[in-house]
Amino acid sequence: MNLHREENMTMLCDFYELTMGNGYFKKDMGEQIVYFDVFFRSVPDGGGFAIVAGLEQAIEYIRNLHFSDENIAYLRSRNMFDEGFLDYLRNFRFTGDIYAVPEGTPVFPREPLLTVRAPAIQAQLIETFLLLTLNHQSLIATKASRVVRAAQGRAVMEFGSRRAQGADAAILGARAAYIAGCSGTACTITDELYGVKALGTMAHSWVQMFPDELSAFKAYCECYPTNAVLLVDTYDVLNSGVPNAIKAFNEVLKPLGIEKCGIRLDSGDLAYLTKQCRKLLDAAGWEKCTITCSNSLDEYAIRELLRQGGCVDSFGVGERMITASSEPVFGGVYKLMAVEDEQGVIHPRIKISENVAKITIPGFKKTYRFYDEHGMAAADCIFLHDEEPDFTQPFELFDPEFTWKRKTMENYSVKPLQLPIFLKGELVYELPTLEEIRAHCAAELDTLWDEVKRFDEPHKYYVDLSQELWELRDHLLRNKGKE
Amino acid sequence: MNLHREENMTMLCDFYELTMGNGYFKKDMGEQIVYFDVFFRSVPDGGGFAIVAGLEQAIEYIRNLHFSDENIAYLRSRNMFDEGFLDYLRNFRFTGDIYAVPEGTPVFPREPLLTVRAPAIQAQLIETFLLLTLNHQSLIATKASRVVRAAQGRAVMEFGSRRAQGADAAILGARAAYIAGCSGTACTITDELYGVKALGTMAHSWVQMFPDELSAFKAYCECYPTNAVLLVDTYDVLNSGVPNAIKAFNEVLKPLGIEKCGIRLDSGDLAYLTKQCRKLLDAAGWEKCTITCSNSLDEYAIRELLRQGGCVDSFGVGERMITASSEPVFGGVYKLMAVEDEQGVIHPRIKISENVAKITIPGFKKTYRFYDEHGMAAADCIFLHDEEPDFTQPFELFDPEFTWKRKTMENYSVKPLQLPIFLKGELVYELPTLEEIRAHCAAELDTLWDEVKRFDEPHKYYVDLSQELWELRDHLLRNKGKE
Repeated sequence: MNLHREENMTMLCDFYELTMGNGYFKKDMGEQIVYFDVFFRSVPDGGGFAIVAGLEQAIEYIRNLHFSDENIAYLRSRNMFDEGFLDYLRNFRFTGDIYAVPEGTPVFPREPLLTVRAPAIQAQLIETFLLLTLNHQSLIATKASRVVRAAQGRAVMEFGSRRAQGADAAILGARAAYIAGCSGTACTITDELYGVKALGTMAHSWVQMFPDELSAFKAYCECYPTNAVLLVDTYDVLNSGVPNAIKAFNEVLKPLGIEKCGIRLDSGDLAYLTKQCRKLLDAAGWEKCTITCSNSLDEYAIRELLRQGGCVDSFGVGERMITASSEPVFGGVYKLMAVEDEQGVIHPRIKISENVAKITIPGFKKTYRFYDEHGMAAADCIFLHDEEPDFTQPFELFDPEFTWKRKTMENYSVKPLQLPIFLKGELVYELPTLEEIRAHCAAELDTLWDEVKRFDEPHKYYVDLSQELWELRDHLLRNKGKE
Repeated sequence: MNLHREENMTMLCDFYELTMGNGYFKKDMGEQIVYFDVFFRSVPDGGGFAIVAGLEQAIEYIRNLHFSDENIAYLRSRNMFDEGFLDYLRNFRFTGDIYAVPEGTPVFPREPLLTVRAPAIQAQLIETFLLLTLNHQSLIATKASRVVRAAQGRAVMEFGSRRAQGADAAILGARAAYIAGCSGTACTITDELYGVKALGTMAHSWVQMFPDELSAFKAYCECYPTNAVLLVDTYDVLNSGVPNAIKAFNEVLKPLGIEKCGIRLDSGDLAYLTKQCRKLLDAAGWEKCTITCSNSLDEYAIRELLRQGGCVDSFGVGERMITASSEPVFGGVYKLMAVEDEQGVIHPRIKISENVAKITIPGFKKTYRFYDEHGMAAADCIFLHDEEPDFTQPFELFDPEFTWKRKTMENYSVKPLQLPIFLKGELVYELPTLEEIRAHCAAELDTLWDEVKRFDEPHKYYVDLSQELWELRDHLLRNKGKE
């Protein structure tokens, strides 16, 4: 595990988490065990699923969680916190349990991505950072997955650092994009810290630094004969850029016996230009020269470019992926689902709303993914945590809204979606490497039907409730939240 | 100056900056003095101007710039860099000049926000981070300025940390929002590091933790009698939330003689609900109770809410401001404008494009803002750096595209837009405090006509070129870039 951020992010919390914490402390409620879920309500861009990411950074955060003397001095200066509470914060550490869906897993609206069971002050304090890291990286992984699917097997490079919303957005956005299938990044530090291969050759300024384009290209080929990817659009792609690239390849690479090289286009009509470039390169005997494109691309631009027969070997995707610009917010929320009394009895809590989509699924829960006889994901079903369903028998799933819609699963297998991450404050999860996360993501995507993966009007994947959970929720709804 | 990030961000660069740097080194071009400008081409959301921000973080970055042994070991492991170049990096520090527009200044498309004069390797290396910090914070400051204007003098709080694109986006986004006129933030660490007042009281979970809403409200009033802002929409705003809030105020605050208190609404039809809440509060004698709103707000939602007579005293604005979700990219670019030969002669460089908007303004330049006799900003005009215009005489400005459009300024004053920040690698700029930056922003905004500030079809502010610069550009365009 690479610790990018060794800084203490404990104070990256919403101020209300501290005022509530101080309030719970004063009212002697600080140690009451509570249950919170992180979940989201809709997939960005109207997609059929999201890719969850950001857990590793949540784990780093929880492990580093503590208040320094400076933090406490700042809080004291605000003149609203009890000295007893500030004393309590001095020895603060996380002692609860966290369950979470592993990074890289496709996930669906309403199911818990992460569940916290902890004393109230602790559970409340970690709300902001948990949401921030899961929302950010899930947003970028979900967007990158769309871009990678549009590229149909061609390499997609993440190129967006300069337009990212801050340094973490650049560094960890590139990490999230890699999880979802990108091949590499332009962001050097993400390679150094996380091993996401960083690549890049030249900007227009390289070409402009030389008296003419040909000498710029020859100089680059001389410096990097085995990695010569030339940017051909500084002056005129077809009349100057590609002819000069071919000359430089012929004069520098050919004598060395090198056939591997490339060109990059960063402007203009890419469908037209790449086809013309391909012809010129092939006619000159540079069939192995690759063509990379990189101008304001996203999943739709790539799909259209390929539909029109563009000759592209790889894509560099910048601002539209690193900011998920078409819908730059992943709306994960953190909601109280239950409180535990001193006898250890769990009392569910529900948030009722006029807006049916905002009604929560109460209680301490667990989720299983059902796979059919072909190994394809058929549905997820959420259970109460202490249920022990018999998966050796046929299992009847039903739609929680339209309960007459029922389906009996036979010849199925199940997998729990959430794994224990922290138990009693101890990390019990063996962190996978980034390569393992990326492989997990690819393998899990293979279990989703194409109907779920398409961009337009995807099939709505089933997220069901167990009979027992459905009845609990129905009871609470009828009783306006009272048990 | 608060150093939020003491981490070394030198490696947060695009990989091509290192491959080009190594190339310049090998070709003995690394020490050649070059000039780069940061500028942008269009204002997000179709606005009439942007607010520049992020310079303080650029300065921190430049001051921390160095390659650690670990950084060099990583680069060596990539097997493409010369040992001589790696040796050079070992003692690398920034030795050039940087000029920049102070943070909080309204700025316009095409004018230089920041200019670098430095040896080629250095100037190239800092491209990504300079763009990243200026693009991110200018994006958020520009968006926040719109939200603050829509609120017409009412306080706007930044509430978006949980939906920010990473930790820096939360921390520094709140900083940028404050520069543009927000009153505070929910992000505690931004207060601790930058002194942006953090505020916040309770989430729905506070209410759900108690047996009923009234006891939750009374408990909060007991904990914070002088800062009791109660969230009234957990169950039912008008039938439960506000009546319970009034009861809690009456039972806890009234006996203490406290009249200052508040309620917050986070859902529902805010125009309707706030009017009803106001009536209930006033009828109960709580005229001084403030009403805060906070559900998916942006400048348009706020404008509409006020137009419909919503009774709101302050706004909490979250995801739509912290991600600038309506247009989440500020498109600042970094372009080579000139190279200096060994005799110290500056040779301009121009990037010519089919797309006229993408043609650069060549040369080493400086910009003046012209104010009319009322002190209102009339136009900006860009000059070559060695020009010495006589501002004691009437000055003729002209449109660089439609050159017959001319206007002679009389009774005017001018102010240079860019100030020296680093000279020969030394910081020569006295960093203003955040309060000073915020005050500067407010004062400069007051010099803009309302026509420039409106949201829809704003007046296009003039950014002109001096006669000499216009002629240089025209000459280079006619000569396809050759001097």
